[in-house]
Amino acid sequence: MKSYQEMTKEELLQEKAGLEAEYAKIKARGLALDMSRGKPSSEQLDLCMDMLDVIDSKSVLKSENGTDLRNYGIVDGIPEAKRLIAEIVDCKPENVIVYGNSSLNIMYDQISRAMTHGICGNTPWCKLDKVKFLCPVPGYDRHFAVTEHFGIEMINIPMSADGPDMDLVEKYVSEDPAVKGIWCVPKYSNPQGVVYSDDTVRRFANLKPAAADFRIFWDNAYCVHHIYEDKQAQILNILDECEKAGNPDLVFQFCSTSKVSFPGAGIAAISASAANIADIKKQLSFQTIGHDKINQLRHVRYFKDRAGIEAHMMKQAAIIRPKFEMVLDLLEKEIKPLGIGSWVNPLGGYFIGFETLEGCAKAVVAKCKEAGVVLTGAGAPFPYGKDPKDSIIRIAPTYPSLADLTEAANVFVTCVKLVSVEKLLER
Amino acid sequence: MKSYQEMTKEELLQEKAGLEAEYAKIKARGLALDMSRGKPSSEQLDLCMDMLDVIDSKSVLKSENGTDLRNYGIVDGIPEAKRLIAEIVDCKPENVIVYGNSSLNIMYDQISRAMTHGICGNTPWCKLDKVKFLCPVPGYDRHFAVTEHFGIEMINIPMSADGPDMDLVEKYVSEDPAVKGIWCVPKYSNPQGVVYSDDTVRRFANLKPAAADFRIFWDNAYCVHHIYEDKQAQILNILDECEKAGNPDLVFQFCSTSKVSFPGAGIAAISASAANIADIKKQLSFQTIGHDKINQLRHVRYFKDRAGIEAHMMKQAAIIRPKFEMVLDLLEKEIKPLGIGSWVNPLGGYFIGFETLEGCAKAVVAKCKEAGVVLTGAGAPFPYGKDPKDSIIRIAPTYPSLADLTEAANVFVTCVKLVSVEKLLER
Repeated sequence: MKSYQEMTKEELLQEKAGLEAEYAKIKARGLALDMSRGKPSSEQLDLCMDMLDVIDSKSVLKSENGTDLRNYGIVDGIPEAKRLIAEIVDCKPENVIVYGNSSLNIMYDQISRAMTHGICGNTPWCKLDKVKFLCPVPGYDRHFAVTEHFGIEMINIPMSADGPDMDLVEKYVSEDPAVKGIWCVPKYSNPQGVVYSDDTVRRFANLKPAAADFRIFWDNAYCVHHIYEDKQAQILNILDECEKAGNPDLVFQFCSTSKVSFPGAGIAAISASAANIADIKKQLSFQTIGHDKINQLRHVRYFKDRAGIEAHMMKQAAIIRPKFEMVLDLLEKEIKPLGIGSWVNPLGGYFIGFETLEGCAKAVVAKCKEAGVVLTGAGAPFPYGKDPKDSIIRIAPTYPSLADLTEAANVFVTCVKLVSVEKLLER
Repeated sequence: MKSYQEMTKEELLQEKAGLEAEYAKIKARGLALDMSRGKPSSEQLDLCMDMLDVIDSKSVLKSENGTDLRNYGIVDGIPEAKRLIAEIVDCKPENVIVYGNSSLNIMYDQISRAMTHGICGNTPWCKLDKVKFLCPVPGYDRHFAVTEHFGIEMINIPMSADGPDMDLVEKYVSEDPAVKGIWCVPKYSNPQGVVYSDDTVRRFANLKPAAADFRIFWDNAYCVHHIYEDKQAQILNILDECEKAGNPDLVFQFCSTSKVSFPGAGIAAISASAANIADIKKQLSFQTIGHDKINQLRHVRYFKDRAGIEAHMMKQAAIIRPKFEMVLDLLEKEIKPLGIGSWVNPLGGYFIGFETLEGCAKAVVAKCKEAGVVLTGAGAPFPYGKDPKDSIIRIAPTYPSLADLTEAANVFVTCVKLVSVEKLLER
């Protein structure tokens, strides 16, 4: 098969005619499909329904430390939940604070408190002329929305197959004291599924920031979210590496069970150095008397430990794996030979980050929409919604049924081809 | 019986000798009792255990609007929970946002967002030289802790039996644009159990603030928390009154089920005008994808409606009423005739606000502690922990057993007498 780049104008025109006919047929079917949402399917959620039985009116709702979990108290999470989270992210329970249901809320609050009160005694960011964040791109739109909401200037950092461009990260972080943070999804990154290499993690841990209150916002959102049983990525432990590098306070690590148990009814946590945890707890005690301890206990009693979580995630993997594989196989077969797109084959997470020819992403998303297939808006994975090359599309295969997804993926493929041909004909 | 004020020095000295002997005996018993905590007792919590059965693995977790409550979504609360809260505070469901488990967290976030982003388009408070809050005293220590944490200057407003001194409130609010808010617990106030009169509520609704972003922080924490079946206070509906007064945006009302179902595992809410709700929702969507919808549903399925909540609160009242009555009877019998203390007989809420002779509160709390009875620290119900008259002590009768409470209350009475005698002998 010839790639589109190798085709003559005449061949491209012929290809275009065929694709237009195909597209017209698709449109005529009046589809209504959605590949935009990074949400578990209801089959995945069904797997966890038994969790709702582990606590009932007969349960003794006491913590192992004797606290009546039905009453007020415990601002930093019940001991058993701290231990469960610590097992997941491989740190000590005393370095964990377990919150309510949303890690996004924890991240937002970390930024918000940095604005109003500063981090570990440093000047509150709202008193500074300028605060900047580094944003590996493509990345998670809600991260960028938080920093934009607080008026923080965002600087794009290109992603490679090993993680963010560390030369650039080191330069910005060491030279500019206004650079206060960086958003990272180190494992199965959103949307590309990139896994940070050991070298990348070590370089993060060894940063020499110009700002004393620079922090890595390490959103380990997909730490146990594998697609395969036999191919699972490992990343170095950032807390350990920071400690080794003499930079123990450099990182805030976030995680949650939102895509383990129930989104919206899970538990979320931060893990960090003793100094950071003490600083957070001091401020947190003004904000709340404590989070939902009964739901924390529900998670511990159901999952028990890391092994319990891992076993559960393998059941989820069995549901999402065919969906990922179908899309990836289709892309491999239909797109790769034509040289009009690239992607990482993810081993985990919730997305495929598809890179079109330059200047095609918006048009592909629009064409799909016109044909009844909703994708995440082009540009969404970039600060200010601006994809400089207009080439990244986030595909979310988990939520639709395999049948719907198959249909949607085929529409997507047709649209990518059609838009690519049109693009190449502009030359 | 002679009041202490009427006694001669000799009589006081004789009284003192008797009290000192009594106190010595008490101390010798090595008590360890606690009247400091505004927490439900475990008997109260037992009443709600059945709530943990209404949702289990067999439940259909769909909202009435069709949303799968196990998945992401719904930032402002599920429709049925909004309706339940609306019934409790008597407003429209569209004027409600249901959050997670903590109304304190909502209040903190309102202040925090006002600092960083401003209220309804007004200048963020962090950009202002000075922000002030009015603090009716005595009041709730955690309210004052939040405003202090954000560097907000707090101004004491004396409480009367009808609520805060409204002449003073009107003067500050209308004259000083730096005054941005006031903390109110309008029904069964913490710690005095004062119920705001209709005139007080109407004067609040008719305030003419110098600041466009002045808000009343109306913490309706005890809206359904009655002690008696037949004696229940009613307050005017602040949202309605503000609307009538042409001031619809003047108030944020807070409430929660923390002391209805489980502290820490309840649901909390804000209610406010359409403009305020829209402003909050816009900002909230950066902070979270949504709160725990399953727990919201659990509350709705268990309590069903306002009548269900009221019936449940009467069961709680049956448990706490004997405790309140025992303490109030003891004070009436032992303290009132001596003229050495005053208090409101509360019809609801969680506290008795005891007023000693001027300059005695700290000494009473210290004496109690020495005898093994812990009370809330003197000064706690005041901004900066400073009780100008050193006369207010917060008594929390709900948590201990009736037996323990009886013992503790008797120790308290002895300590009040002893400290008062010592005080009067200083004259």
